[in-house]
Amino acid sequence: MLSEARNRLLTEVGPGTRMGALLRRYWHPVAAIAELADAPTKPVRLLGENLVLYKDLSANYGLLERRCPHRSADLSYGIVEQCGLRCSYHGWMFDQFGACREQPFEDIDAPEIRFRDQIHIRAYRVEPKSGLLWAYLGPEPAPLLPNWEPFTWDNGFVQVVFSTVPCNWFQCQENSIDPVHFEWLHDNWKQRLAGNHAAYAPRHTKLAFDEFDYGIVYRRVREDSDEASPLWTAGRVCLWPNALFTGNHFEWRVPIDDTSTLSVGWFYTRVPQDREPFVQNRIPYWTSPIVDENTGRWITSHIMNQDFVGWVGQGAITDRGREHLGHSDRGVIMMRQRFFRDLEVLEAGGEPNAVIRDPEVNRCVTLPIIGRRRLTEGVTRAELEATKGFGGGDIPRPGFPYLYGQPDDVRRAYDEAMGFETAK
Amino acid sequence: MLSEARNRLLTEVGPGTRMGALLRRYWHPVAAIAELADAPTKPVRLLGENLVLYKDLSANYGLLERRCPHRSADLSYGIVEQCGLRCSYHGWMFDQFGACREQPFEDIDAPEIRFRDQIHIRAYRVEPKSGLLWAYLGPEPAPLLPNWEPFTWDNGFVQVVFSTVPCNWFQCQENSIDPVHFEWLHDNWKQRLAGNHAAYAPRHTKLAFDEFDYGIVYRRVREDSDEASPLWTAGRVCLWPNALFTGNHFEWRVPIDDTSTLSVGWFYTRVPQDREPFVQNRIPYWTSPIVDENTGRWITSHIMNQDFVGWVGQGAITDRGREHLGHSDRGVIMMRQRFFRDLEVLEAGGEPNAVIRDPEVNRCVTLPIIGRRRLTEGVTRAELEATKGFGGGDIPRPGFPYLYGQPDDVRRAYDEAMGFETAK
Amino acid sequence: MLSEARNRLLTEVGPGTRMGALLRRYWHPVAAIAELADAPTKPVRLLGENLVLYKDLSANYGLLERRCPHRSADLSYGIVEQCGLRCSYHGWMFDQFGACREQPFEDIDAPEIRFRDQIHIRAYRVEPKSGLLWAYLGPEPAPLLPNWEPFTWDNGFVQVVFSTVPCNWFQCQENSIDPVHFEWLHDNWKQRLAGNHAAYAPRHTKLAFDEFDYGIVYRRVREDSDEASPLWTAGRVCLWPNALFTGNHFEWRVPIDDTSTLSVGWFYTRVPQDREPFVQNRIPYWTSPIVDENTGRWITSHIMNQDFVGWVGQGAITDRGREHLGHSDRGVIMMRQRFFRDLEVLEAGGEPNAVIRDPEVNRCVTLPIIGRRRLTEGVTRAELEATKGFGGGDIPRPGFPYLYGQPDDVRRAYDEAMGFETAK
Repeated sequence: MLSEARNRLLTEVGPGTRMGALLRRYWHPVAAIAELADAPTKPVRLLGENLVLYKDLSANYGLLERRCPHRSADLSYGIVEQCGLRCSYHGWMFDQFGACREQPFEDIDAPEIRFRDQIHIRAYRVEPKSGLLWAYLGPEPAPLLPNWEPFTWDNGFVQVVFSTVPCNWFQCQENSIDPVHFEWLHDNWKQRLAGNHAAYAPRHTKLAFDEFDYGIVYRRVREDSDEASPLWTAGRVCLWPNALFTGNHFEWRVPIDDTSTLSVGWFYTRVPQDREPFVQNRIPYWTSPIVDENTGRWITSHIMNQDFVGWVGQGAITDRGREHLGHSDRGVIMMRQRFFRDLEVLEAGGEPNAVIRDPEVNRCVTLPIIGRRRLTEGVTRAELEATKGFGGGDIPRPGFPYLYGQPDDVRRAYDEAMGFETAK
Repeated sequence: MLSEARNRLLTEVGPGTRMGALLRRYWHPVAAIAELADAPTKPVRLLGENLVLYKDLSANYGLLERRCPHRSADLSYGIVEQCGLRCSYHGWMFDQFGACREQPFEDIDAPEIRFRDQIHIRAYRVEPKSGLLWAYLGPEPAPLLPNWEPFTWDNGFVQVVFSTVPCNWFQCQENSIDPVHFEWLHDNWKQRLAGNHAAYAPRHTKLAFDEFDYGIVYRRVREDSDEASPLWTAGRVCLWPNALFTGNHFEWRVPIDDTSTLSVGWFYTRVPQDREPFVQNRIPYWTSPIVDENTGRWITSHIMNQDFVGWVGQGAITDRGREHLGHSDRGVIMMRQRFFRDLEVLEAGGEPNAVIRDPEVNRCVTLPIIGRRRLTEGVTRAELEATKGFGGGDIPRPGFPYLYGQPDDVRRAYDEAMGFETAK
Repeated sequence: MLSEARNRLLTEVGPGTRMGALLRRYWHPVAAIAELADAPTKPVRLLGENLVLYKDLSANYGLLERRCPHRSADLSYGIVEQCGLRCSYHGWMFDQFGACREQPFEDIDAPEIRFRDQIHIRAYRVEPKSGLLWAYLGPEPAPLLPNWEPFTWDNGFVQVVFSTVPCNWFQCQENSIDPVHFEWLHDNWKQRLAGNHAAYAPRHTKLAFDEFDYGIVYRRVREDSDEASPLWTAGRVCLWPNALFTGNHFEWRVPIDDTSTLSVGWFYTRVPQDREPFVQNRIPYWTSPIVDENTGRWITSHIMNQDFVGWVGQGAITDRGREHLGHSDRGVIMMRQRFFRDLEVLEAGGEPNAVIRDPEVNRCVTLPIIGRRRLTEGVTRAELEATKGFGGGDIPRPGFPYLYGQPDDVRRAYDEAMGFETAK
């Protein structure tokens, strides 16, 4: 149970807030690389700031404040140039560093004034990696953009999925360190939603939470497993500061502002060995709706949609003054304490948790992974066909279980990569 | 003309308000019985409280606060159990009295603590009657759920219709004691809307308003009738505290919160004598939209839709400081005064108006009814065919005149019950 | 760069505001004449006031406050009578001067009281002209409704187009005195939107702004023209207080309230000489959507839609404390200063700018017009066919370039008037 002040500390992300300052020390995914290839500008709202992301004709990426400093026109309707982004209202042009490079009429009418030299707008770093565009909004020197181990894998089909979730990021991230919710939200509820009234799934009997360099590992024993299971020995990862990592996929909970979160899913599926070598020329992206337009209720059919129901049900910014935490929530408590400590570290001039600055380390940042062999070496067709159900999350399957609304073209590309016959 | 403070007194319904306390002394219809058979949970907002209504596998009804006390997940996405409602996030389970009956991980990990014994959530009484589920949010002992006379009738086709009306409940209820609006809103305007420029309907020439045990009866004489007419001798009923009763139907104006109202219509149509005996196995329910999606304007084609136009046109919470009441509004004034008195009665520890506690009385609470014979005995096919137009509101007719959007299956069931040939 | 207080002075339009008082000294177009022929009442929100516009059965126009003084019902759902508008709730009737003419039940029940004589509602002047209905909300004596020169022309096809733009009127009107935006927003951006990466349009090299009786003329020289061009000699007109006039069309930016503006376009196209005489029996009107429903982004395909992108991009009420004005914005600065001066003139009891009271002047108020000959005399079919592209804005063309969404029936009527073969 947190006081209102402590709750604000965890949840406020805008400029000038303490958590906002902390989160600005990390890189955040904000778009797909393919997205900017499809349309060269994208309005982005990140950590309470209205920005425009663009890719110019020289393939430079820029992330600028969205309003032109001339007369506040919306630069997301701007024109991308050989080098920079131009406001479509009166033609002022900016480069990716925020310098004003042209003011067409002023440049003709009064070039000697060099009015443009007085104009500078907020500009942030952008880097592409593994199908995503990443933004850094903090002070220099910027840390390295983490090269997580799965980003180094090949022979995989990757897809990126966005959802806009109308609640605060922190309650989403609390779900990254919450083993018990799998038993209920994904196992038992899913069965009941499907009209299946069979016995409930094996219960959790033991939990553990351990900090490591890049977050917290959580481990569990269930009635059907013991401490020899990889669920205990390897565990899963609450990745710092705002992601879940499960081995074959990442889920970032990127704060749009205090009351909305961009869910960014990155899903890797290793192709079966008989489909190698597989090279993916373009990492597809899509947006998953979260509301059932017919009923106005949240969609519940897919795994992450079930998570979203959990998150948004807690309210726009959940009131942690009314919660009643138990033993199941020890990870949540540990995570909050780590954040509270890190806020102090930052304000004392220290480096916050899990920031990577060593290029050697960043050649490949390894993470705990259940079933690494299958992900890095693949499975034979026979192994694949011998695995039933969804249980083996790292085994390729027809159908996308994580989010509602996968477009047909992505499904077909996936099935083609895996050697599945596409269902009609 | 009311002061702002007096207006707030009539219109505020949330917890802690005076009118909210008064309205909590009555039962309110919040859903159809068939609705919970179709889906076992329903989010309900009532008197400013967010609740979840459910029916468990033992057919117990419960009405609980909507947020789980564990970590605030939305219980309307919960799992109904043999006895109670379970949160789908981490499995905490509650019974209809608000007791926490299970906390799966805590029960395994630390059963000796019995953490669940410390957890209790708000829970309210629910009772089914006549196709509706009724809620009581007040203190114990709860009064009886009124057994209004029409609830005792048989050989009738009943349907329940919901509409969400974006304004305060009190201006809706003022329309329950407003005889003159029939002349204009339903007679004359309806003609003009249909492009009919014939002479206007007979005018009201005399009104009377009389309190009785369960509300206020209003009586009228029109140019085409006299004091021998049942419009004068029987009259119609402004039913306490928030309904209209016209003989063959009820309309409750159930406060969702200060600025929205759930209109609940309960419509009884006696089958013609040649269709008896008629037994209705399931009372159907449907939701009537109130906005024309093509124009963004209110729907005006049906009787209660015309009422809705009157209500919402007055604003979200009408400003009674700008009104100019006349002789036509004597009933409105009488009703307000009764509410103001009742607020004082309640605060002095008394029993408010029209609360029923005597089981003998509640075996059948009779009400003034125009045309009771037809409703209780039915009409012959010949009588039915001899009655033209809609004038005889208690005479079964093809077509549903009250609300826009009756679904085809309800229309077909009605026509079948009445022995009408269903229009294509 | 304006202070917040100065910005409020320009942008606040409601009753009791200084700019609101100034704008109430002018006539504003609020509907099409044909619109009231199609439906006799229309809810209007103008300068922050909720009103109802109607046309009664005697063809009187009225503009009344929208809420009935009886019990606040919405008069836009009222009944038009032989002389006045009647509330559909209880039948009170008002004439176009705001007098209450009937209170049906009071008139029968207590005629001696003459309660209606105590009731008066706000009523404003309405006048029809050139396809539009105009409202005047200021003090008497009202000035003349300007008879702008194009309103006196014949042999033209006129159409009226409405759009609701969710931002303050003043930033829309700043666009009326902004020559440079044509180069970018309409020439260069339009090319890029069409995927055309050809060289940019000729640049502006010189601007001039001159006040005249009815606003400010702006003149320009571009790289492809000189001071002999009509763009310099005649110029275009920022028409006082809230319009753009370009010769063949007007665009009024009518303040709905502080954060929304009704764009009213009036487009005149002279028919070619071989189609004369042309008489238009009914000036058609239509509403142009501004949001692409598929993407949620602003529509960008048409000229005024591009302007709308400029306006709304500046925010609901643009913050003029963050702007950086240059030489391109001298007209904007001049316009603001004129408004600031006029606010003082008004408060000193003077007559504000561009108010017309002399009937002789108002027989035909001439304005600077580029290409007046073509507009007043027409072109031959051969001239028409010799003119390529859209450049000659005063030359009739198939296709409506100004706003998205012209209905087929308007397009067909236009093509028929011009002698164009209608595209399928």
